[in-house]
Amino acid sequence: MKLVCLDLEGVLVPEIWINFANKTGIEELCLTTRDISDYDVLMNKRLGILEEHNLKLSDIQEVINQMEPMEGALDFIEELRSICQVIILSDTFEEFAAPLMRKLRWPTLFCNNLIIDQQDRVAGYTLRQQDGKRKAVEAFRSTGCDIFAAGDSYNDVTMIQKADHGAFFRAPENIKEEFPNYPAVKEYSELLNLVKKFIKA
Amino acid sequence: MKLVCLDLEGVLVPEIWINFANKTGIEELCLTTRDISDYDVLMNKRLGILEEHNLKLSDIQEVINQMEPMEGALDFIEELRSICQVIILSDTFEEFAAPLMRKLRWPTLFCNNLIIDQQDRVAGYTLRQQDGKRKAVEAFRSTGCDIFAAGDSYNDVTMIQKADHGAFFRAPENIKEEFPNYPAVKEYSELLNLVKKFIKA
Repeated sequence: MKLVCLDLEGVLVPEIWINFANKTGIEELCLTTRDISDYDVLMNKRLGILEEHNLKLSDIQEVINQMEPMEGALDFIEELRSICQVIILSDTFEEFAAPLMRKLRWPTLFCNNLIIDQQDRVAGYTLRQQDGKRKAVEAFRSTGCDIFAAGDSYNDVTMIQKADHGAFFRAPENIKEEFPNYPAVKEYSELLNLVKKFIKA
Repeated sequence: MKLVCLDLEGVLVPEIWINFANKTGIEELCLTTRDISDYDVLMNKRLGILEEHNLKLSDIQEVINQMEPMEGALDFIEELRSICQVIILSDTFEEFAAPLMRKLRWPTLFCNNLIIDQQDRVAGYTLRQQDGKRKAVEAFRSTGCDIFAAGDSYNDVTMIQKADHGAFFRAPENIKEEFPNYPAVKEYSELLNLVKKFIKA
């Protein structure tokens, strides 16, 4: 069985935190692991900012619902799902991604979860597991699947390396230079062609 | 992350071989493992019958395309996909299931594959792995998912037992009697309620 594992943000939808910061005008939410290297510290900072601005999950989802998948992403994934199996592997949170997943017609998504309290506030988060993309690819391979993985950034490298085949999609130059053994494409039509070759192989 | 693993035939779509036999009038294709206990012998018998009748994959898919998901199945799975992740685990073949999966809007499906030759004939088949449903549930659990599994027959028992929670859906009386510890429901609304409890737990 042929399975394609795709990153979400930067491949099918825009970066959710950055767009959320832009749409709400809360600049502090633009902080990334480049600014605060400890992910747990960064996430708790972000959740503190949400609380400061009294943003509940429903408010957040309303803002995210104003975002759209990247141009051509829906057609791409619809065609992909008609020719092979697809699972999205992401470090985002299911509750944040939901409005965008609906617009992509609910492809299966393996990611993390927020802890929502009785008042609909974001009280915390849980990671599915450490290094979740790589471990998911390993688990899917253990079920007898051949896997093609594609993503755009450093957190996709180990899943691409563990897959049977892989590619970078709209990755920055430094990543492409560091991992020259993988094809790097910019258009969905190119990515689809790589997957079609993988399916036939 | 909450993941629901569902059997396909008998839960979302009718039994494919039996319906295919009825629609084509080829009675021999009604043979099941009750008649020929060795699955490999049975499958090779079926493939021989397809060849005898000169049925190519496109002919087979055309017949299967005349089948419909079970009444209420599409609404059920659409609602399910909006509240949690879903993967269908089936012993069928991806190539047979495709027309019905399209009608269910392409939920992710882990199953087996046919070997199709250059002339579009079914030349053989490959199993993803032995005891594929159980092993898939074990693999998904290893990625940090909580799993609810549901099916209607004996080949669903091990996946239901390996899942965190499970239920039978429209299962025959003997199965319900043999495994009385699992809820057994008949309506999609009941199954949805069990899943909603599982998600909240």
